[in-house]
Amino acid sequence: MNVLILHGPNLNLLGQREPDIYGRDTLADIDARLRALGEKAGVQVESFQSNHEGALIDRIQAARGIASGIVINPGGLTHTSVSLRDALAAVEVPVVEVHLSNIHARESFRHTSMIAAVAWGTICGLGAIGYELALRALLERLRSG
Amino acid sequence: MNVLILHGPNLNLLGQREPDIYGRDTLADIDARLRALGEKAGVQVESFQSNHEGALIDRIQAARGIASGIVINPGGLTHTSVSLRDALAAVEVPVVEVHLSNIHARESFRHTSMIAAVAWGTICGLGAIGYELALRALLERLRSG
Amino acid sequence: MNVLILHGPNLNLLGQREPDIYGRDTLADIDARLRALGEKAGVQVESFQSNHEGALIDRIQAARGIASGIVINPGGLTHTSVSLRDALAAVEVPVVEVHLSNIHARESFRHTSMIAAVAWGTICGLGAIGYELALRALLERLRSG
Amino acid sequence: MNVLILHGPNLNLLGQREPDIYGRDTLADIDARLRALGEKAGVQVESFQSNHEGALIDRIQAARGIASGIVINPGGLTHTSVSLRDALAAVEVPVVEVHLSNIHARESFRHTSMIAAVAWGTICGLGAIGYELALRALLERLRSG
Amino acid sequence: MNVLILHGPNLNLLGQREPDIYGRDTLADIDARLRALGEKAGVQVESFQSNHEGALIDRIQAARGIASGIVINPGGLTHTSVSLRDALAAVEVPVVEVHLSNIHARESFRHTSMIAAVAWGTICGLGAIGYELALRALLERLRSG
Amino acid sequence: MNVLILHGPNLNLLGQREPDIYGRDTLADIDARLRALGEKAGVQVESFQSNHEGALIDRIQAARGIASGIVINPGGLTHTSVSLRDALAAVEVPVVEVHLSNIHARESFRHTSMIAAVAWGTICGLGAIGYELALRALLERLRSG
Amino acid sequence: MNVLILHGPNLNLLGQREPDIYGRDTLADIDARLRALGEKAGVQVESFQSNHEGALIDRIQAARGIASGIVINPGGLTHTSVSLRDALAAVEVPVVEVHLSNIHARESFRHTSMIAAVAWGTICGLGAIGYELALRALLERLRSG
Amino acid sequence: MNVLILHGPNLNLLGQREPDIYGRDTLADIDARLRALGEKAGVQVESFQSNHEGALIDRIQAARGIASGIVINPGGLTHTSVSLRDALAAVEVPVVEVHLSNIHARESFRHTSMIAAVAWGTICGLGAIGYELALRALLERLRSG
Amino acid sequence: MNVLILHGPNLNLLGQREPDIYGRDTLADIDARLRALGEKAGVQVESFQSNHEGALIDRIQAARGIASGIVINPGGLTHTSVSLRDALAAVEVPVVEVHLSNIHARESFRHTSMIAAVAWGTICGLGAIGYELALRALLERLRSG
Amino acid sequence: MNVLILHGPNLNLLGQREPDIYGRDTLADIDARLRALGEKAGVQVESFQSNHEGALIDRIQAARGIASGIVINPGGLTHTSVSLRDALAAVEVPVVEVHLSNIHARESFRHTSMIAAVAWGTICGLGAIGYELALRALLERLRSG
Amino acid sequence: MNVLILHGPNLNLLGQREPDIYGRDTLADIDARLRALGEKAGVQVESFQSNHEGALIDRIQAARGIASGIVINPGGLTHTSVSLRDALAAVEVPVVEVHLSNIHARESFRHTSMIAAVAWGTICGLGAIGYELALRALLERLRSG
Amino acid sequence: MNVLILHGPNLNLLGQREPDIYGRDTLADIDARLRALGEKAGVQVESFQSNHEGALIDRIQAARGIASGIVINPGGLTHTSVSLRDALAAVEVPVVEVHLSNIHARESFRHTSMIAAVAWGTICGLGAIGYELALRALLERLRSG
Repeated sequence: MNVLILHGPNLNLLGQREPDIYGRDTLADIDARLRALGEKAGVQVESFQSNHEGALIDRIQAARGIASGIVINPGGLTHTSVSLRDALAAVEVPVVEVHLSNIHARESFRHTSMIAAVAWGTICGLGAIGYELALRALLERLRSG
Repeated sequence: MNVLILHGPNLNLLGQREPDIYGRDTLADIDARLRALGEKAGVQVESFQSNHEGALIDRIQAARGIASGIVINPGGLTHTSVSLRDALAAVEVPVVEVHLSNIHARESFRHTSMIAAVAWGTICGLGAIGYELALRALLERLRSG
Repeated sequence: MNVLILHGPNLNLLGQREPDIYGRDTLADIDARLRALGEKAGVQVESFQSNHEGALIDRIQAARGIASGIVINPGGLTHTSVSLRDALAAVEVPVVEVHLSNIHARESFRHTSMIAAVAWGTICGLGAIGYELALRALLERLRSG
Repeated sequence: MNVLILHGPNLNLLGQREPDIYGRDTLADIDARLRALGEKAGVQVESFQSNHEGALIDRIQAARGIASGIVINPGGLTHTSVSLRDALAAVEVPVVEVHLSNIHARESFRHTSMIAAVAWGTICGLGAIGYELALRALLERLRSG
Repeated sequence: MNVLILHGPNLNLLGQREPDIYGRDTLADIDARLRALGEKAGVQVESFQSNHEGALIDRIQAARGIASGIVINPGGLTHTSVSLRDALAAVEVPVVEVHLSNIHARESFRHTSMIAAVAWGTICGLGAIGYELALRALLERLRSG
Repeated sequence: MNVLILHGPNLNLLGQREPDIYGRDTLADIDARLRALGEKAGVQVESFQSNHEGALIDRIQAARGIASGIVINPGGLTHTSVSLRDALAAVEVPVVEVHLSNIHARESFRHTSMIAAVAWGTICGLGAIGYELALRALLERLRSG
Repeated sequence: MNVLILHGPNLNLLGQREPDIYGRDTLADIDARLRALGEKAGVQVESFQSNHEGALIDRIQAARGIASGIVINPGGLTHTSVSLRDALAAVEVPVVEVHLSNIHARESFRHTSMIAAVAWGTICGLGAIGYELALRALLERLRSG
Repeated sequence: MNVLILHGPNLNLLGQREPDIYGRDTLADIDARLRALGEKAGVQVESFQSNHEGALIDRIQAARGIASGIVINPGGLTHTSVSLRDALAAVEVPVVEVHLSNIHARESFRHTSMIAAVAWGTICGLGAIGYELALRALLERLRSG
Repeated sequence: MNVLILHGPNLNLLGQREPDIYGRDTLADIDARLRALGEKAGVQVESFQSNHEGALIDRIQAARGIASGIVINPGGLTHTSVSLRDALAAVEVPVVEVHLSNIHARESFRHTSMIAAVAWGTICGLGAIGYELALRALLERLRSG
Repeated sequence: MNVLILHGPNLNLLGQREPDIYGRDTLADIDARLRALGEKAGVQVESFQSNHEGALIDRIQAARGIASGIVINPGGLTHTSVSLRDALAAVEVPVVEVHLSNIHARESFRHTSMIAAVAWGTICGLGAIGYELALRALLERLRSG
Repeated sequence: MNVLILHGPNLNLLGQREPDIYGRDTLADIDARLRALGEKAGVQVESFQSNHEGALIDRIQAARGIASGIVINPGGLTHTSVSLRDALAAVEVPVVEVHLSNIHARESFRHTSMIAAVAWGTICGLGAIGYELALRALLERLRSG
Repeated sequence: MNVLILHGPNLNLLGQREPDIYGRDTLADIDARLRALGEKAGVQVESFQSNHEGALIDRIQAARGIASGIVINPGGLTHTSVSLRDALAAVEVPVVEVHLSNIHARESFRHTSMIAAVAWGTICGLGAIGYELALRALLERLRSG
């Protein structure tokens, strides 16, 4: 079994700036923890980050028939990308959308998500732990599914 | 330490209808699992359900100075209740908002939340497991806080 | 067979003020006529009024599995209460929404109803006779259903 | 005494398609029942259907000074026709607007009515019985008026 | 087999004005070409133009059970006519909506169509050839259907 | 020279109701005064009223190449009829839009006009004299044009 | 009897620029014609132009109890000035609003008028003759009033 | 004479939190000052706080025929409660709406009030003194009324 | 100590028209009462009225460093004047906004205020007494400040 | 002569999923048919698909001065990409926009197109045949142009 | 050659308050630097500040035929003044709009400009240097023009 | 010291088309002038153009800690790209947004910028000189900073 973790634009900067706010964890740290969590459950966890909408879509398409679930933090693409939404819908596996910050407490253009309606669910605002909770939810569903 | 679990209007019907969709778990089952999860972490977990906005606000106010965190599924009050929002903001402890269904994939009036902006974060659409993830997030934060 | 009549906030004042506009009938008069109409059809008609959204929801939930239909005038809750809508939808019996006044000829915030989309139908603006027509429609449907 | 029943565009198709949904009654059946109901009350009931907005307005104008009330299902003209509204307002008799289906549970452009604000009241979503209830309300009002 | 071609208000003026823009083809020319195209495919093509919404609806209703497909340029009725939409939906055959000009490059009130959602598809902005493409698409579908 | 006067839906009722508000002049009186005004200027003035949008469009099209100007009170069609607008634009003569009442002081749906942008100008709210002023403006323009 | 003619901001430039569009008449020419028209009717016509909203309001207030009617072209203040509206409403004499150009065929922010709802009527888009028509309407009303 | 003071949801927390912002006065302190102010004027002042919309409505209804005026701070119900509005309108005595904070300088959903249009007037943003000013205004009106 | 009272456009007409509605008090009467109220508190109260936005801004700027508070009824400028808002914000003393009528019960364009967000608070709808309450609030704050 | 066929994000999945809905044709099949159609007309047809907005823009720019027309299905970029619109406008050759599904019958965010206003025309909702119709229209225009 | 510098309401306060934010430069300092910059280029630079919309319009009109370009910071009039826009458009010389602060990072009502669409261009958010850049751009254009 | 110049989609076409409008300068010419301007100030100026949002973000991230300022013309990404905005905000150096054309005088979707609120300031509509002014502003700030 296989779960794909996707990080959208600018998430590669995690841990490099404002550690008091975003924590000192880098994306590599988070990905490592997710891989470890997956290993315990006998599930392979692969991660991919890109600042390119197209590269994220390519990666999602490559996961068709391989991944059993997707965790995605679409970053700034959350609010506008119909293409990302269509790609996720085409994979036909459960998707969990994650946001590190509480997008509902920020600028109004961040309050809507193009992704949410094709996701199984959304976790937002709980910081880096949100990724782990998302993976746990997926694993639980795959286990019971 | 003490965490308060709040269930808004109509959530008392959980498990009694459409078990194929919402699962066979009753609210009592969920609350029991949350209490057990709390016990393991040495945290007392109390639950409260009401169909009355006022009763929920009374309960939230009673938790001021006592609860260290709140998990709330505001049900239909999510989209309109300024009073519930103000009550939660007044407690000054981290709040996690939970929705069993993916409110972003339902009618448009369910896409906005009065609560989200005063919550630490939101978990929606993952079913009953969302409560457990919310509690885990709170426990993690209380532990590390 | 059993039909539940629900009157929302402020409808208890009926007949006590502006009799030239709203008529001299009190809510008790209306309820009596509805009971009589039910009796003729061999159907028990129960009425309930409350100014509390929560109490109305409690009453609706209590009618699950008992009432075969509901007539409701949600009063001021018509335009905002998602919780009332969800409660009515959960009962899974036909609901007829009634308004004494023509809400479309009043302030614009009264032109939308949260309830209408989960009701079987709506009768508005015909005065107290609207309740009787609503009950007749329900009885007809129960008879032919 | 005289009541005019008006059926707007496409209502002549009633009973000819999707009988499981709309019932097997044709418009002729409904009109016959309304005429019979009128006869019992000593009131002449005339019906008119047209797919032409102008023909409906002509018919409404012809009823000035003759009809004591109007029951109208404006069909698709409900949502846009200012001219129909103006014609109905000019007759200065009580008008009851009827819709067979629950327009509030359909596409959003069907949620508004140009007619409702000049009608005495509206009955929508109860199927063919809605016409009879509308006529009963009118007869009651004419009797007591 | 039978296909109905419908031209809405003002399309009878085609070819009579601004030939540099709209071409020198009259509606008769276009209809002749469509008839010829139909003949080759063994399909009878009938055309009808009216400035009256009601006459268009009457013609559509008359085609129920006879026409296997409809090509319609609703002209100015495109943007407002719920009745035309309902009539087309009631025929239950594939409908192709055609616009000679690119309505998306004109005034904003021309950017929305009441018809599009009940059509099989839309061709707009390609001039008179749009009618032929629409008929070809219909013929292809009828052939393969 | 020739000027066409067009009266939209319900204007045939002028003078028959609420004479205190709309004056005792019938449409025939107004048309007679306009004819007389035209005669003095050596211009033939023809009038046409219809409750049918299609009939008004037919009449406008018939005036192409004949009328040198049009005065139109589109009645309730003012606010919605794209087809009427397109017909008027196709005549390519100056059009003056007239409204007896001040549409800006009435319901908000009367504040916009589909016709105004293709008219030379608009006169509204001055009562029956508005028609005469409109005709005077046209005559002046034709004279100086 | 006395009529006040008011010209808002930038109307003093009339005739000085783009004479092909706005004509060669200066504001002085127009005012002279209006004075002459008034003289014939035995009515004193005074004109006032200002680029200052406050000066226009001062002038309107000074006309209370003196002027029997007002013709005003509010220029750019048309679309925003609540104060001008309130001043005109306070005079309690008939007001005719005039616009030289067809504001409905220009930018969308020019489509609404703060003044129209408190005016007796509006004349727009007919060029300089609009002022004369407005004065004629007022004189007619004062004569018959 | 009798004046009713109503405090909506969460106002019972006054003085208990953020005293630097809201002051150290509790609701009891404020109510005592209002009672004292009333006593001087020979008017009985009663206060009531609830977090329940329904309880506030019950209390308002109980004041019909008894209270000569109402001062209400509706808290979070200000922005959504049609029922509270209807209850206040039904009492038919002057109502003054009070807000401690300047709701126009806070989140946009706090900028509108369902209550304001049925109140005699509103005082907002002046802190606890706002209650006293509201009572003074009422007393002045009752005295001069 | 010094308080500035500002009256916007058209307020100079107070008392001269509709005394049954606005009372018989002129602006001079009100200003006299405010001066007297100030004298008792040892505070100089100066008043200024203008129909000119610019003159009001000039007066506000002149009060910088001199006035300790401002009471302003911005009249029709309330709803649109960014410049007035900026001037008031630049003075950096508490501002109380006053409206004689209840702007929330009038036309919708009067429901918003450009001034409110930079004011300490707002008093609206209580008639002339609103000015006195505003001054009392200011005096109280200056005393306790 | 040369025509460029462009396929936006996710169109590479065509034929691989939901063949009952989208047909069994792959993008390669469609491109082959278009090439064949071009060959008959002596026109070279080249196709390009990418999930990257930037790659599509690069390809469009490369076609400047080479392609005589473009057929584009922008996929999810349709609704948001200003850059794609600007690139197409810069090529200054006729563009036909194609959509396989009827975007007007899907989610509301799919109802608007950034591309349509710079295209010659649009074909949507007719399935794979839409591409061929678009190419035919272009060939016809190039031939007659 | 001649360039006019215009400063709208409240800009006369520059340098007098919040020097840490707006800098210690007064408007006189800025104007002096602009004059010096003009002198070097052989261009006369005149400056004018007013809090009166009307005075600014008067000044702009006086510059017709004299000034070769205008730099304007319209202050709070930016967002609402149609009259200022019309005056600037009437001068028919290039206009550069300047804002000291970044209006797009402030309240939403500051995000739109009535002036921008008739200006040659806009410089905003760069502080006092914005004026110099605007003048440089004008001088460059006048030189090359 | 180092300044980064970024050009978004389609700006590589500069100078190649419509030289009468956009000038004959290519992007290379502009970049050369900016480099020269930088050299004089002892600041290294690097330029980068891409049609790929992702490539622009990559380039911005690469400039973190290196560049002291950024000049960006985001082209069509201006109006929609949240990711570009987030990348620019993450660099934490002053950013000047440049547009060659006056985006406020074009289609309405070009009137809003996702970038403006995180920029220090914006220069738009002055043509190629806008880049130089932007760089001058940055150099000035870096010098004085």
